[in-house]
Amino acid sequence: MSRAIPIAELIHTRNTAPGPTDTARPRPVGSVYMGGFRAPALADVHLAIIGIGERSMSQIELLAQIPHADIVGLCDLNAEAATAAASQVEALCGTRPALFCGDADAYLRMLRELRPDAVMINTAWEQHASMAIAVMEHGAHALVEVPLATTLDGLWQVVDAAERTQRHCMMLENVNYGRDELMFLNMVRQGLIGELLHGEAAYIHELRHQMLAEHDWRSGHFAARNGNLYPTHGVGPIAQYMSIARGEDTFERIVSLGSPARGRELFARAELSDNHPLQGTRFDCADINTSIIRTRLGRTIMVQWDETSPRPYDRKNLIQGTRGTLAGFPTRMAGDFLGEATPVNPHPADGYNRDLHPWWCGAEAEAEMHARWDHPLYRRLGARAIALDKRGGMNYLLFARIIECLHRGEALDQNVYEGALWSAIAPLSEKSVHEGGMPQLFPDFTRGDWKHTTPLGIVP
Amino acid sequence: MSRAIPIAELIHTRNTAPGPTDTARPRPVGSVYMGGFRAPALADVHLAIIGIGERSMSQIELLAQIPHADIVGLCDLNAEAATAAASQVEALCGTRPALFCGDADAYLRMLRELRPDAVMINTAWEQHASMAIAVMEHGAHALVEVPLATTLDGLWQVVDAAERTQRHCMMLENVNYGRDELMFLNMVRQGLIGELLHGEAAYIHELRHQMLAEHDWRSGHFAARNGNLYPTHGVGPIAQYMSIARGEDTFERIVSLGSPARGRELFARAELSDNHPLQGTRFDCADINTSIIRTRLGRTIMVQWDETSPRPYDRKNLIQGTRGTLAGFPTRMAGDFLGEATPVNPHPADGYNRDLHPWWCGAEAEAEMHARWDHPLYRRLGARAIALDKRGGMNYLLFARIIECLHRGEALDQNVYEGALWSAIAPLSEKSVHEGGMPQLFPDFTRGDWKHTTPLGIVP
Repeated sequence: MSRAIPIAELIHTRNTAPGPTDTARPRPVGSVYMGGFRAPALADVHLAIIGIGERSMSQIELLAQIPHADIVGLCDLNAEAATAAASQVEALCGTRPALFCGDADAYLRMLRELRPDAVMINTAWEQHASMAIAVMEHGAHALVEVPLATTLDGLWQVVDAAERTQRHCMMLENVNYGRDELMFLNMVRQGLIGELLHGEAAYIHELRHQMLAEHDWRSGHFAARNGNLYPTHGVGPIAQYMSIARGEDTFERIVSLGSPARGRELFARAELSDNHPLQGTRFDCADINTSIIRTRLGRTIMVQWDETSPRPYDRKNLIQGTRGTLAGFPTRMAGDFLGEATPVNPHPADGYNRDLHPWWCGAEAEAEMHARWDHPLYRRLGARAIALDKRGGMNYLLFARIIECLHRGEALDQNVYEGALWSAIAPLSEKSVHEGGMPQLFPDFTRGDWKHTTPLGIVP
Repeated sequence: MSRAIPIAELIHTRNTAPGPTDTARPRPVGSVYMGGFRAPALADVHLAIIGIGERSMSQIELLAQIPHADIVGLCDLNAEAATAAASQVEALCGTRPALFCGDADAYLRMLRELRPDAVMINTAWEQHASMAIAVMEHGAHALVEVPLATTLDGLWQVVDAAERTQRHCMMLENVNYGRDELMFLNMVRQGLIGELLHGEAAYIHELRHQMLAEHDWRSGHFAARNGNLYPTHGVGPIAQYMSIARGEDTFERIVSLGSPARGRELFARAELSDNHPLQGTRFDCADINTSIIRTRLGRTIMVQWDETSPRPYDRKNLIQGTRGTLAGFPTRMAGDFLGEATPVNPHPADGYNRDLHPWWCGAEAEAEMHARWDHPLYRRLGARAIALDKRGGMNYLLFARIIECLHRGEALDQNVYEGALWSAIAPLSEKSVHEGGMPQLFPDFTRGDWKHTTPLGIVP
């Protein structure tokens, strides 16, 4: 049993210290705003990967199928894992990537020696920011697993580095490429549900079995922090529907409260050996956190997080407008916009008139929704994505779009400010929880430039 | 078109004025704590009703079927409505109740002249508190439609009146008598889902058609207030599961944020005549409000309210414990407590391991849930309740229990402090919304005595 990060190092005093939230910093001289940034087109994208685990192995399988993606380097502390991944790349692509292993500075050697075009960062949460900055300082685009950083200061440093180096820094929010998320985005952009009022996002996914893993770096976060630590899978799509930080609206404040922390201690007692290091650990992190974001336009977004309780997987994915509501888990729709011609589930009429707006859902409804409103990107690449990607296609679409944009020299679908803003929910929620639900203002990482940034359109 | 309450009179400056929340007041000399209060047994309960509308007509039908309930008086501004109701009582019960009509003081004459045992108050929200106080001052028990009052000051006055007069004052939270709510209470009391962590409550019910009604007193509240104005139907059952204000736990604070207010203006434009008085009204109240309550034990309750948007009816009714989660709309359960023997819905396995805790739901599952866990009260009276009560039985069970308890001289299932605490969500949420989500402390209406109050058990 090895634990990469001692719990003491994860106590985020910065995330809970009292004092005014840092809402704006001046842009350093020589730096430029990166909303809408386009890098020079690349005939082939030379990719390197830092951190080889389950995630990287499935990334490699997908990248091998994407034109113009060329995996040139792999880096991990563990030489065995990196060697196995290199063999996989060689088997799939015909060329063997260079390996950089064995010590914590190996990724810096890789950046210096290989000079890749773009680097994927798949390491533990707390390593993302410093690695992303180093990647950009070495002239490569940073493609960072969620979250972009775990502190507000880390997020500012990442934003500053992107603006200073003028490199892409995209957080890899794959859920925005889910079929239903793309479909809802397509529908929202067409105005079908009217003016947007409210959204709901969640990451409810029991992952306590990670406490059994050899490299269990997540338990340190559960022990030493208390907030909504993993918000971006739920919030990313909702933020995109609302064009947050892109011309239309942006996050203004958040309030956050958490439940008692019980489930991890109970799991340790029931499932771990008596002398396991987590047996004596006190977990501060609420089993379920509930937060509410208010946007500049006064919209609300409810955000929940629970990786501990025995509940079904749920990301909510609810977007409510004046004319209707779209929601996930299960996929369903309701509202005036469906019209009389749309088949609705029969619903018994009673004194409450509850059948005014029934959910339209079920396998048949979903098939018709997809036929009517599937996103053009999904229509173009979805069949291939489903065939190749065992997680329903979203990872394939994410990588295919990134490589396509880098190859064409186009702006990526998510900019560094979106990644930073979505990630900021974690430290701000920690501070709000610490202060008994006090509202926390979001920093404006764009320093006002979100107002002039083009919303993501309907990608063809 | 008549509008009983001018909008100006509804502007609740008290609910939004800055300053510390009033969290405790000393109990006046001569007053007594009313938790667990038992009044002398009544052979027959002589009932009077103030406010005759749709609600009263269905109440009368149910009360006529309940032993020891005797409707002796009816009161309304509108003599025609009261006369029709009196004829209905006479047809169903054989005796004609006395009528008190025509002016705003008619109910006081009724209280003086009839001296009823108990009085139901079905008037507009803003009239509940003063009428409940008058009822108790005249020696009768007050049975008050939700909410108990619309301001904190009104709630304190109601509590003080109950303690001073030593009369029951029960808010008629009928949803606590729903079949599934009773079943969940039964399961929670048996410890099936472990330690309670989190709940979710809502009243999502499009009621904009009320803007078309002749006596549209609710629009005034939507125009002049902004908060979670109708929380008790959702919160009542959750609070009972958690034994809030009764020995185990109580509400500590609330944060609240609302969406933009758009739906009522859009409805007015689309559905009301050009010269309708609501045409020029500015509605302040968010289309959807989202609030989070934290309890003394650190549990959280998410509370939503939306009577405006085209969404399906929903009260959430979610209670989450360390061993499982029970939820409504649709009725479903998940968790360790179900065990391997419990049939679960097949769920496709994929890379996410999302099938760890699937929802157990559907018609067959519900039938088995009911067979296993229906509440004893429902087993005793449910068949009769369903046969008589077109709203699924909850109103019949509510009235049957009240009359049964008054007849036997037992404590009612909900005390005045529970009604006050649940109702306090509305004014506290208004203040929180007004202050941008600032946490608001709940008053302790029991003045510390909740700690010694017996939780509601499993009523046989």
